Amino acid sequence: MGRLIAWCAALFLTLGALPGIAQAEDGYDLWLRYRPLPADAQARDRARATAVIFDADQHDVQVLAAVDEIERALDGMLGAKAPTYGQAVQAGGIVLGTSGEPRIKALNLPLGPLGTEGYVIRSTVMDGKPVTVVAANSGVGVLYGSFALIQHLQRGLGLEGLDIASAPKLKLRLLNHWDNLDRTVERGYAGQSIWDWWKLPDFKDPRYTDYARANASIGINGTVLNNVNAKADSLTAPYIAKAAALADVFRPYGIKVYLSARWSSPIEIGGLKTADPLDPQVAAWWKAKADEIYKAIPDFGGFLVKANSEGQPGPQDYKRNHAEGANMLAAAVRPHGGIIMWRAFVYQHENPEDRAKQAYDDFKPLDGQFADNVIVQVKNGAIDFQPREPFHPLFGAMPKTPLMMEFQITKEYLGMATHLVYLGPLYEEVLQADTFGHGKGSTVAKVIEGDLDKYKLTGMAGVANIGVDRDWSGSTFNQANWFVFGRMAWDPQASAKQVAGEWSELTFGPNPAVRPKVVDIMMTSRDAVVNYMTPLGLAHLMATSHHYGPGLWVKDLARPEWNPVYYHKADATGIGYDRTKTGSNAVAQYAPMLARQFGDVKTTPEQDLLWFHHVGWDYRMKSGKTLWEELAGKYSLGVREVADMHSAWSALAPYIDQDRFAKTNAFLSIQQREAQWWRDASLAYWSSVSGRQLPAGEAPPAKPLADYEAVSWPYEPGR
Amino acid sequence: MGRLIAWCAALFLTLGALPGIAQAEDGYDLWLRYRPLPADAQARDRARATAVIFDADQHDVQVLAAVDEIERALDGMLGAKAPTYGQAVQAGGIVLGTSGEPRIKALNLPLGPLGTEGYVIRSTVMDGKPVTVVAANSGVGVLYGSFALIQHLQRGLGLEGLDIASAPKLKLRLLNHWDNLDRTVERGYAGQSIWDWWKLPDFKDPRYTDYARANASIGINGTVLNNVNAKADSLTAPYIAKAAALADVFRPYGIKVYLSARWSSPIEIGGLKTADPLDPQVAAWWKAKADEIYKAIPDFGGFLVKANSEGQPGPQDYKRNHAEGANMLAAAVRPHGGIIMWRAFVYQHENPEDRAKQAYDDFKPLDGQFADNVIVQVKNGAIDFQPREPFHPLFGAMPKTPLMMEFQITKEYLGMATHLVYLGPLYEEVLQADTFGHGKGSTVAKVIEGDLDKYKLTGMAGVANIGVDRDWSGSTFNQANWFVFGRMAWDPQASAKQVAGEWSELTFGPNPAVRPKVVDIMMTSRDAVVNYMTPLGLAHLMATSHHYGPGLWVKDLARPEWNPVYYHKADATGIGYDRTKTGSNAVAQYAPMLARQFGDVKTTPEQDLLWFHHVGWDYRMKSGKTLWEELAGKYSLGVREVADMHSAWSALAPYIDQDRFAKTNAFLSIQQREAQWWRDASLAYWSSVSGRQLPAGEAPPAKPLADYEAVSWPYEPGR
Repeated sequence: MGRLIAWCAALFLTLGALPGIAQAEDGYDLWLRYRPLPADAQARDRARATAVIFDADQHDVQVLAAVDEIERALDGMLGAKAPTYGQAVQAGGIVLGTSGEPRIKALNLPLGPLGTEGYVIRSTVMDGKPVTVVAANSGVGVLYGSFALIQHLQRGLGLEGLDIASAPKLKLRLLNHWDNLDRTVERGYAGQSIWDWWKLPDFKDPRYTDYARANASIGINGTVLNNVNAKADSLTAPYIAKAAALADVFRPYGIKVYLSARWSSPIEIGGLKTADPLDPQVAAWWKAKADEIYKAIPDFGGFLVKANSEGQPGPQDYKRNHAEGANMLAAAVRPHGGIIMWRAFVYQHENPEDRAKQAYDDFKPLDGQFADNVIVQVKNGAIDFQPREPFHPLFGAMPKTPLMMEFQITKEYLGMATHLVYLGPLYEEVLQADTFGHGKGSTVAKVIEGDLDKYKLTGMAGVANIGVDRDWSGSTFNQANWFVFGRMAWDPQASAKQVAGEWSELTFGPNPAVRPKVVDIMMTSRDAVVNYMTPLGLAHLMATSHHYGPGLWVKDLARPEWNPVYYHKADATGIGYDRTKTGSNAVAQYAPMLARQFGDVKTTPEQDLLWFHHVGWDYRMKSGKTLWEELAGKYSLGVREVADMHSAWSALAPYIDQDRFAKTNAFLSIQQREAQWWRDASLAYWSSVSGRQLPAGEAPPAKPLADYEAVSWPYEPGR
Repeated sequence: MGRLIAWCAALFLTLGALPGIAQAEDGYDLWLRYRPLPADAQARDRARATAVIFDADQHDVQVLAAVDEIERALDGMLGAKAPTYGQAVQAGGIVLGTSGEPRIKALNLPLGPLGTEGYVIRSTVMDGKPVTVVAANSGVGVLYGSFALIQHLQRGLGLEGLDIASAPKLKLRLLNHWDNLDRTVERGYAGQSIWDWWKLPDFKDPRYTDYARANASIGINGTVLNNVNAKADSLTAPYIAKAAALADVFRPYGIKVYLSARWSSPIEIGGLKTADPLDPQVAAWWKAKADEIYKAIPDFGGFLVKANSEGQPGPQDYKRNHAEGANMLAAAVRPHGGIIMWRAFVYQHENPEDRAKQAYDDFKPLDGQFADNVIVQVKNGAIDFQPREPFHPLFGAMPKTPLMMEFQITKEYLGMATHLVYLGPLYEEVLQADTFGHGKGSTVAKVIEGDLDKYKLTGMAGVANIGVDRDWSGSTFNQANWFVFGRMAWDPQASAKQVAGEWSELTFGPNPAVRPKVVDIMMTSRDAVVNYMTPLGLAHLMATSHHYGPGLWVKDLARPEWNPVYYHKADATGIGYDRTKTGSNAVAQYAPMLARQFGDVKTTPEQDLLWFHHVGWDYRMKSGKTLWEELAGKYSLGVREVADMHSAWSALAPYIDQDRFAKTNAFLSIQQREAQWWRDASLAYWSSVSGRQLPAGEAPPAKPLADYEAVSWPYEPGR
């Protein structure tokens, strides 16, 4: 028998995963993984899910989508199909309904303050029969509530004694796809764009529907289809028809379509000589274009615009400011209820000012000048989606202009697809940062929720990490970043750790042996990447252009801010960017209390130390170590943290299906090797610049600096 | 009740396919679609599939792969798992074994002439018990036999009274991937390359295993991983390690890995000053490189080389000929048993000679000069994978040099992913063409089988149509082209129609209501595309560069042979390329009997008329019509044929799962629209050139010629 087992093992090793499992657990289902619950849970839940009941006269496509989803979920989790529809209440039924229906109204649920998208889930009695009600003021609220109910079941929590009410705190909860029309994805690490423009509008890939389901399940209500570095072609008639086909697929899931608009489109596809926003012909062209789009897509959301940044055209080309540009477009979409999202990520190669200061310099003076259907979209930090940045100084500084948050979900600077980095702690850190805009407690979360400044528009955008890879996001754990973005767009006060736990249960099942370990890995991962890439406030030290791996030594690129040396300013005496009064004085862009704190090396949080200060190598840290010792130690800590993540994952082998286990395991091997590479290359470089030996106890880099400098990464993804 | 049905319909229309079906029938399973057989067939077959029996002492990875596959198939089709392994014979068992095993030897099966890859399947008696034996001289033969047995079951034919023997007629049955290291695929219309080089060798995507299974199931035994327009990087150590990881996955499936080699690699990655094949340093570099590769991949197949063609470097850069180049490489791989496949697809922009003649001119004089581990790879026609071309004149003209066939599976010139074109008839037409090389009956098939000229090496290569699209090939019907390529590489005498029928049964199930209709569609489709794109021997009229849609009018590109007008030579008096004595005399490259036939306009098959002759518009065709009337009629016929294909497919709706039905239906809508466009644009152009009105009864084009000329296709796939 031992021999037979050996043959089995040989077969297994040779051929990989068993067929059934391979097919089943390829990650396509994301967190909508409706696998059979344990037998006891099934028995319990079946009594509470005897039927899906809704007002069949409604014809509300979003309620129909909710019914379909609950059917699918019950079918998968309880192994028994509930009747698809039924108007008559029955015991143990799940009743879906909107506040306009008499039997919902009769329940007197607290729907009033929940707006058009909130929902109530309540265990109650209807017609004398015990039921679970999912109620809302609109179809999409019912849909959101249905997903919440399903997730409750998925997590093994059952349907007893429910009384849940939830409503989103932000109006715009959007993905930004940096997807090009040729299906490449700028900073995309999960394969080609899921939009198969070539075959649209004729062929609507079933994947588009699953995309919409996944987004609706976490409350995302809009998607910008094309790259902010936009082509005018996306505004031509054929591409409008393609976008309309997608909008048709998304509508039942409450997701609106938006487009990135290239500023110079009136010239490129409109035959005009100018794109000056004050030129009446230009305004007329945009108005006609908006009319054309709304004819094809009546619920079109509006335009996202990257203007006068990184070579993109914009109103400044005509000596107009951002507000003049945005307001012209805003007038074009206003008759249709559309909005303009105007990006504040601007810096000019020609501007010698500290890059971190330029967006504030450009936008702060325009506060109050934007039309009321414009919202300014601000990246979380003032540079560009680094592993850690202080929050962007515009937050709290634009009381008369609605600001929305732009997070990056795709990991441009954080190891692309294969490094495991959970972004929840990054988002949370930014959202919980205090701007002091209205005194203490004026967190970024509160700023974007709009209550502090009475914003009419509110929102959060996430640069998507979605592609045609079977698992959508390039790795299982990258799916968590999409998930947590959705959760925090719904509620900017959400806890990263709590969300990680929920994601773990939905993704790997509610096994109590799994959740805490997965959460530990996730919560460690962001500190780890900061430590092995850019500790103590360092930033933008990645290799040129693709941003993969270390490029600390790069100093010969044409523009100063393209070079890592611009950001770290290390020399024999010290390291860091002086943004105090003695330097660029970027600290002055923050509220006075913060400007003082960040302006003083002693009161600056050490995690941001080198962001704000140029500090001597022998500077004494709180730990008592010198900066050089502390810095070296952080890199080594990052490497150890990845090793710990890897062994924690290895210990989960008995609980995770083979395919997903093996993939994450392979990726952690890559990450472990590359964390070591980051540490070694960085320490080799700092050592050479500072002229210092490695601190005692630190292992020397595996290779000489020149070897690290010689590494090249041809054919890298995401460009 | 009617109302409830209406709601159901609304739900259905709104939300698309039902979840279960959508997941199940996305085309990923290809023809290895092990769905449950009808109950009666299951009951019958279960008695003949009680166990899978093999010699467990073997440890032959290919036999283990066969066991795994049969298990998977029985599990799917019979809904009952057979015991995975067992040495003891039992009634109704499926016995797998090689000729070295005593119990197989004792059966006296006719394995002798079947070589290392052939197999026998026989219903017989072993130890007094009825069994089905799958036997071969090697593990891979057992694997091929096992796939044949599985396909027999899939087609509902049961396992009664089997007596099958089969062996491949060609030694090399290879896919050529024109896949680049950045995952773009030249002429690929099914998404990115399936090779995720970035994550290799750490991460072996389970899809690689399924790729190997699919190929083994149709007898493919090798794969060239990278584009013939090669980068030297693929020969560097990191990429060799990546290729080795793939080779490890493919080995249990009998598939060897090959690489395209860039001629100038010794300069680009070797630090040499030259790539002259007679330079000893160059030869030494290649020898060392081959040694390095074989150390990582002991069963590495060898190199494929595109040299001195379309700008690629080659031995002619050093005044050496193709044989001198090939033989130098051949010496490098010979100690390891490797081979060189040297492509005959050569033409030089500098050569004013008829492009169709250049390969023959270059290679014919070298007959007999190639080393014995070199095989010359020749495209099926002398231009480039057109919808129809006469067979390449090199076939039959190189008695002392093994030639292998290169077919294109991807549809570069045939409508890319969305036009339904089954290539079986194209392959068959070429293979059954008579070269008269050894007198009548010397078909191309017989030439490449090698018996006529006693070739030591034989083979067929297919330019793959595989990508990361979920259905692998960009459409369901494109899968049939991969399938028929495998079948014809195994047996160049295979019938395109028979193969179409088998594919239909494996892909859509053995429903007798489906097979004949699907076969009709497939067998019509190749004529249809010839008719609506390039009837009567016309060729290469596609738009510039991407080859999508008509570009008949293009005449201003730098090199003559880049322009469609080079190929059709239409003017007021007539149309066609004079390749007779009065023209380029390309006909003289064929055997004398054919040279006479093709040299005379009256004896030239009308399907090749304008390939060989420049003919007046009023030339009288066999039908009695003028050429102009016949030509116009062919275009219209092509449009009607597509319409017929579309309605035939529509009639299959009740029998095909929703997702695959809808996708093909959407694609047929595209094809119908574009067949009309091809017809209209072509007739508008010919009319303008000839100065003739459309023949009576022919509907005028929908638009003026200028509109067709103005069409552009930005962001097209496959470049």
